[in-house]
Amino acid sequence: MKIISENMAFGGRQLVVAHASTVCGGEMTFGLYLPPQAEAGRVPVLWYLSGLTCTHENAMVKAGAQAWAARAGIALVFPDTSPRGEAADDAAYDLGQGAGFYVDATQAPWAAHFQMWSYISEELPALVFDQFALDPARQAITGHSMGGHGALTLALTYPERFRSVSAFAPICNPTQSDWGRKQFAAYLGGDEALWVAHDAVELIKARGLTLPLLVDQGGADKFLDLLQPQALEAALAGPDAVLRWQAGYDHSYFFVASFMEDHIAFHARALFA
Amino acid sequence: MKIISENMAFGGRQLVVAHASTVCGGEMTFGLYLPPQAEAGRVPVLWYLSGLTCTHENAMVKAGAQAWAARAGIALVFPDTSPRGEAADDAAYDLGQGAGFYVDATQAPWAAHFQMWSYISEELPALVFDQFALDPARQAITGHSMGGHGALTLALTYPERFRSVSAFAPICNPTQSDWGRKQFAAYLGGDEALWVAHDAVELIKARGLTLPLLVDQGGADKFLDLLQPQALEAALAGPDAVLRWQAGYDHSYFFVASFMEDHIAFHARALFA
Repeated sequence: MKIISENMAFGGRQLVVAHASTVCGGEMTFGLYLPPQAEAGRVPVLWYLSGLTCTHENAMVKAGAQAWAARAGIALVFPDTSPRGEAADDAAYDLGQGAGFYVDATQAPWAAHFQMWSYISEELPALVFDQFALDPARQAITGHSMGGHGALTLALTYPERFRSVSAFAPICNPTQSDWGRKQFAAYLGGDEALWVAHDAVELIKARGLTLPLLVDQGGADKFLDLLQPQALEAALAGPDAVLRWQAGYDHSYFFVASFMEDHIAFHARALFA
Repeated sequence: MKIISENMAFGGRQLVVAHASTVCGGEMTFGLYLPPQAEAGRVPVLWYLSGLTCTHENAMVKAGAQAWAARAGIALVFPDTSPRGEAADDAAYDLGQGAGFYVDATQAPWAAHFQMWSYISEELPALVFDQFALDPARQAITGHSMGGHGALTLALTYPERFRSVSAFAPICNPTQSDWGRKQFAAYLGGDEALWVAHDAVELIKARGLTLPLLVDQGGADKFLDLLQPQALEAALAGPDAVLRWQAGYDHSYFFVASFMEDHIAFHARALFA
């Protein structure tokens, strides 16, 4: 593990860390924000999973999360969205590097490196809880677009691990979307029965929702037909599941930043309960 | 004038606007954030001048200013830092495109396009006050690094125009710094008597300071010898002039973002007095 950069931010420390990943078979990079409270002991952690084309850096510099995380005393982890370097790639923006889709690939040429599910759910947590003042008993997760899909599917698969889940304009029903079917076919193969474990709407139908959920979706988002928030909305039930339509907002980081304060406050309520 | 992009942000509108500039002899681009209050009438405006290598975009996406501007009801203008396109350039990061230094060049090859002082102080204000719901009677100005230099020298030259001035790690004494002497020689020529009109420390010595000033300077900034905050500190006097040393902070946008709330609050007090 090596610290690539460190910047003081809002009284805490914004790190960029590179490390050798066994599951992804190469070097991986992530951002980690440690709030001022981490100097005094272990703090809760909010995972932030990014969307298509992003690296660890985009949300770290554009989502405005550190301001609120510093006040709440919550650490932020910003993983990359795929393996890099020697990993296979594809000319399209929505497959290969920058588009790991938070699954473990079983198909060539992806299987050798594209193990993002195991990376995010096992390897990276083991590293950060070992190396930094983070509390594994207090985790929450969020994400944007493809990263919202990752956050929802991870939280629904490991509801005992996360106290709360949120998402900004998530891909909700990827087995029924061109943001999903293309990637699942490439990474997981043609057996669609294997895809449903990575579809938030299907997971809610199969398992129910047992942790607090907050989703914001811009009403002017030009990707609504790919995100399918209506399918998630129809699957949600109960007072702890809230999907809010935000009129006029698009799919950009300006949208994410606009509601970040709300999301951090939502997670803080669960993490400090 | 044409709107290049528009994103809803914090209830307001983040625009990117391109227009034909007469003084710079080509197309110029700027960012404009209109807070929600601009729907109901003219709002005060805070000019944000950026530093070396930046375009109109960097601070617009990384400084986190819109969150606070939206609450206060203040518009933000993010000009570019130089002419682009056919304008002359230099291989160095600190001369030519991205490094206009907020002066009107008199020397070849710069004089044909590099008229950033006139652009920022005359042409762009005329455009934005004509086209948008901004109040010319309520202006304030801030900036970062080279942009801090621009903000200070503009405010000191036109103290009747700006109600307050602030800066993040500004170039304070450019006539005595390699961030200044190189550029003034290239843009203004070898007569150093012409440079002092663009040196904040010299302007304070000659004219005094008649408006509220707030400067934040990171204690771990690796450019301290180029910025020369001590020279500004020595020139400041009176309760309305505050230079704060922020221990541990560097020169990055993480530093700028960390203190943006304070700066917007500082300007709001003057703009809404």
